[in-house]
Amino acid sequence: MHVEAKLRALGLELPAPLQPPVGVRLPFAAVRVRGDRAYIAGHGPQLADGALAGPFGKVGAEVSLEEANALARLTALSVLASLQSALGDLDRVTAWLRVFGMVNAAPGFTQTPAVINGFSDLIIELYGAEAGIHARSAIGVAELPFNVPVEVEAEVAIVP
Amino acid sequence: MHVEAKLRALGLELPAPLQPPVGVRLPFAAVRVRGDRAYIAGHGPQLADGALAGPFGKVGAEVSLEEANALARLTALSVLASLQSALGDLDRVTAWLRVFGMVNAAPGFTQTPAVINGFSDLIIELYGAEAGIHARSAIGVAELPFNVPVEVEAEVAIVP
Amino acid sequence: MHVEAKLRALGLELPAPLQPPVGVRLPFAAVRVRGDRAYIAGHGPQLADGALAGPFGKVGAEVSLEEANALARLTALSVLASLQSALGDLDRVTAWLRVFGMVNAAPGFTQTPAVINGFSDLIIELYGAEAGIHARSAIGVAELPFNVPVEVEAEVAIVP
Repeated sequence: MHVEAKLRALGLELPAPLQPPVGVRLPFAAVRVRGDRAYIAGHGPQLADGALAGPFGKVGAEVSLEEANALARLTALSVLASLQSALGDLDRVTAWLRVFGMVNAAPGFTQTPAVINGFSDLIIELYGAEAGIHARSAIGVAELPFNVPVEVEAEVAIVP
Repeated sequence: MHVEAKLRALGLELPAPLQPPVGVRLPFAAVRVRGDRAYIAGHGPQLADGALAGPFGKVGAEVSLEEANALARLTALSVLASLQSALGDLDRVTAWLRVFGMVNAAPGFTQTPAVINGFSDLIIELYGAEAGIHARSAIGVAELPFNVPVEVEAEVAIVP
Repeated sequence: MHVEAKLRALGLELPAPLQPPVGVRLPFAAVRVRGDRAYIAGHGPQLADGALAGPFGKVGAEVSLEEANALARLTALSVLASLQSALGDLDRVTAWLRVFGMVNAAPGFTQTPAVINGFSDLIIELYGAEAGIHARSAIGVAELPFNVPVEVEAEVAIVP
């Protein structure tokens, strides 16, 4: 698949590891590898230096659908950065299995699938339809950590 | 198990594949099969023709508990239709493992387990207690796609 | 690992099985075991006798961050009680894989990771960093069953 070459061809850069806000302790793993599976913690959109990327707030109020879709695409890059760090090579991911998309939704904002499409579209572009396709939910939640507009957790199959 | 015969005996029909509302793109798989597992995307209640089934809105406000329980039962049929399509035979499901029930909850509506029982009861009726029993969560979320009152994602064990 | 000895050394007691409120039917398994995996249903904080532990309500309003963190720690004990019952020995858990933390969040309460740390910290203390570390999400949901402030579902690897 040569995912890393595809990322370069698209001009996309993986962010540095997450820099949580000051005073925040996150006692968990960004990726947990076990046998032929990798479990991916909830990730949000990040800047190149690892800080969380704005805008922040509720989609449908402070954040537009278009902005949220772009943040979901950035969230895919955050997840790929963590997978790269955990696996050494993004081509070790042989199949995307489950994507759980969470949108920090303003009251009445129901276009959550259109937001999470920013994540799914990039994964399928990079991995191809066969390996990249995944089961998915895309729901509106009440609050997200650090007031990020989008968070995604996932599970993938890997070469052990 | 002969789940399809049991469905017929109960007079239940599986809906046609989901017809998303006009203009909506859903770039993911309803069911993702890998080895001895199938990962099931978030499903909502559907009519026989594949359109989403109403009523729509928040449970505890526009939608009653009884209506929501019936919609959760319909959601089980939506999931079974997708499994039938992906696996060819519903008897390939050897164990239900995880059911994640999401209720579009009006403020203060906490009877989410009673809603998702509509899903669990039908699965256990069809598969029996040994294969049908599952770990479950049943939570109230802020918003759901298309304003459906109930959505369920799941994971099952299958004959590879 | 001798998790049960560590619990005793910490003076911690596992609660009795959940006593749901009167009139509530919960047709699912607290833990679903399959091969080398155990899927853990959503659990809330419990008292020693199995009843749900208060305070109840929304974190950031009726329930403080500190109280919610303590309830997340109690939730870890609820989960361990169910695992003990399902597996016979808590040392059969060889790796924590996925922890999905749900906080009954008041509007604007975004410190959900600090709440769920009460769960993660105890698991890591009991199992050690290597087995206890897990991928995690910690989100704010609209409503939880019985108005509990915290609920956690999880997946672990086990000795089959």
